[in-house]
Amino acid sequence: MGEASRTSEARRDAVFGRWVVFSPARSRRPTDLKSHNPTNPSPAPGAEAAPKPSCPFCAGRESECAPQIFRVPPEDALPWRIRVIENLYPALRRDVEPPEGGGGEAEAAELPGELAVRGFGFHDVVIETPRHDVRLWDLEAEGVREVLLAYAARVRQLGEHPAVKYVQVFKNHGASAGASMAHSHSQMLGTPFVPPSVKSRFNCMKEVFDKSGNCSLCEISSKDILISETPNFSAIVPFAASYPFEIWIIPRQHLSYFHEIDQDKALDLGSLLKLMLQKLSKQLNDPPFNFMIHSAPFGLSSSCLPYAHWFVQIVPQLSVIGGFELGSGCYINPVFPEDAAKILIELDCS
Amino acid sequence: MGEASRTSEARRDAVFGRWVVFSPARSRRPTDLKSHNPTNPSPAPGAEAAPKPSCPFCAGRESECAPQIFRVPPEDALPWRIRVIENLYPALRRDVEPPEGGGGEAEAAELPGELAVRGFGFHDVVIETPRHDVRLWDLEAEGVREVLLAYAARVRQLGEHPAVKYVQVFKNHGASAGASMAHSHSQMLGTPFVPPSVKSRFNCMKEVFDKSGNCSLCEISSKDILISETPNFSAIVPFAASYPFEIWIIPRQHLSYFHEIDQDKALDLGSLLKLMLQKLSKQLNDPPFNFMIHSAPFGLSSSCLPYAHWFVQIVPQLSVIGGFELGSGCYINPVFPEDAAKILIELDCS
Ligand SMILES: Nc1ncnc2c1ncn2[C@@H]1O[C@H](COP(=O)(O)OP(=O)(O)O[C@H]2O[C@H](CO)[C@@H](O)[C@H](O)[C@H]2O)[C@@H](O)[C@H]1O
Ligand SMILES: Nc1ncnc2c1ncn2[C@@H]1O[C@H](COP(=O)(O)OP(=O)(O)O[C@H]2O[C@H](CO)[C@@H](O)[C@H](O)[C@H]2O)[C@@H](O)[C@H]1O
Repeated sequence: MGEASRTSEARRDAVFGRWVVFSPARSRRPTDLKSHNPTNPSPAPGAEAAPKPSCPFCAGRESECAPQIFRVPPEDALPWRIRVIENLYPALRRDVEPPEGGGGEAEAAELPGELAVRGFGFHDVVIETPRHDVRLWDLEAEGVREVLLAYAARVRQLGEHPAVKYVQVFKNHGASAGASMAHSHSQMLGTPFVPPSVKSRFNCMKEVFDKSGNCSLCEISSKDILISETPNFSAIVPFAASYPFEIWIIPRQHLSYFHEIDQDKALDLGSLLKLMLQKLSKQLNDPPFNFMIHSAPFGLSSSCLPYAHWFVQIVPQLSVIGGFELGSGCYINPVFPEDAAKILIELDCS
Repeated sequence: MGEASRTSEARRDAVFGRWVVFSPARSRRPTDLKSHNPTNPSPAPGAEAAPKPSCPFCAGRESECAPQIFRVPPEDALPWRIRVIENLYPALRRDVEPPEGGGGEAEAAELPGELAVRGFGFHDVVIETPRHDVRLWDLEAEGVREVLLAYAARVRQLGEHPAVKYVQVFKNHGASAGASMAHSHSQMLGTPFVPPSVKSRFNCMKEVFDKSGNCSLCEISSKDILISETPNFSAIVPFAASYPFEIWIIPRQHLSYFHEIDQDKALDLGSLLKLMLQKLSKQLNDPPFNFMIHSAPFGLSSSCLPYAHWFVQIVPQLSVIGGFELGSGCYINPVFPEDAAKILIELDCS
């Protein structure tokens, strides 16, 4: 059980302000940590594209999907590589009246206590490939770039709607990470309010900025552990990672909005994201995972820009959240970031 | 799919300040919602107590457990009904030096940004019954009272340690709710900091109090739905429940600390908790669940007392958390509280 040399430690991060308890006694050796719920089988490289009879996200079954918003490439004559479509079972609905006051946020700020607003919003799906047997990290870096640029294009569209305050872009991979569809896809929700975690992230980063004059994410702290770097991005295991083998990919330049990403940076991010997903898949036995893009709310006041820095958080799902985490908001992580990073750095995925 | 008559709605609660998206389109009819991971089989009532050969929590295997803190009844001559023991694999350790400044909280408040403190704290287990085949709600109300009083007694002991700022009492039942042990038990963690969710709960309740003069939990709002009431407690489905069939049990009197509960109130709570767990088990097919006791940090300043009101939150685990929830802190609940409450009210468990 655990690394005999280390004892428990509690750490607080400078972005979310969360406390995490690192407890090596709670797990086997970090190298033994594997997913018990591996997800898709590896595709046979070069195999014929085999649509799954029942999968509406496969090429040829477009008519079984909710309406398309756009596709890549745009020309209908060419086969598509990416489709952005409406979610057939949307959590928030584009066809209801947006809440008054431009989104409920105004009232929400004034009225404390319970509040209800109409379920207005946008809920879209990004089909990342026409092939059922291809995972995001099986695409070339250029292919991952295209997916990232499709996210960004759709976020820009949603940002034009006056009632949309934030867009949460996320990916669920594997059933234990919530995925109900196996075909490689991601989602985004445009909400009429700024979500709670976004608010608390900005509160925490503001506090750090007010006291230190620094953006929490601008320079990788000496305490965070660098796994890999490209000209524009750093991939780290954060000093106070909430989850074992959690990875953050952070723009090295101070940039507030993901959706302003350009072609070059998107290629750079595409290659780093691909590499990180390959590493997690190889080390942890194709684990279920989520990734989330943490960006800034639309129309952020310019005084907030100095501490608004977007990033991608990748979370493999290796353990179950229990009552302690649900009740306290504090996580127990059995793997020290230093140990996870060492393993990920040494892993060869070439 | 879903109740045709209802469309989505977003609601914010007055205790945690969380936004929840209610989306009936995302699920089958609420009455169809059942756990796919039922937990323990029902015990055969009146069956001989059958210790499980490998379970250290069963009667007769006490020597395989970490040290005992106390037992009920205290006399060694009588068989025990409840044991409070140290956790064999503690997340926080009682044998390391507590962080300076009486708990790290002082520094944490001043130093923004990343912070690490020694992993000092207490992590205990409450074995709720000597029998492997008995669940908490199989005990008589008096038996549940004894468990609640054991929690309270241990919380009071932990509160005497100057470096312990908060005690999170919680129960995991079933593997999908995080339980690694099937034998009925709960846990508590005494932490050297006030956990993040406790802080944000107090911030939210303070805001409501400052603007309205009311404690968020003092009067059950007309928007919350009452399932059942006893002289001292109300069981409700909260207006903005984050999870389908989530239940809160709230003292009807304004009380800040769970651990000050007396014999009468503990019996009252015991009977109501038993009834709610029976209802969830019957309606949802013995689902995995967590419950958490939300109390106040030790040594709360008297100015906070008017809005500090303890309660119990019960959360059946029926769906998986995905990237949207992880990223935004906002939950998607496919079941409207009104619908869950109606089903729970009508269910007969006598
Ligand atoms: N023919 C079709 N056309 C268009 N869209 C279609 C479609 N068939 C299915 N869809 C949609 O495709 C999406 C696939 O999403 P995922 O598999 O990532 O997870 P899902 O949203 O189901 O829930 C997970 O993610 C959410 C959000 O994090 C959690 O609330 C939830 O508990 C978790 O299981 C679904 O939202 C579904 O509605
Ligand atoms: N012989 C013995 N003597 C004393 N104690 C013994 C023992 N054998 C086992 N234990 C302890 O008993 C506890 C049983 O707890 P649970 O089954 O409720 O969940 P666990 O803490 O494993 O993890 C769940 O809850 C935590 C906290 O919410 C989450 O971090 C985690 O992911 C989730 O699986 C364990 O903590 C274990 O260390």
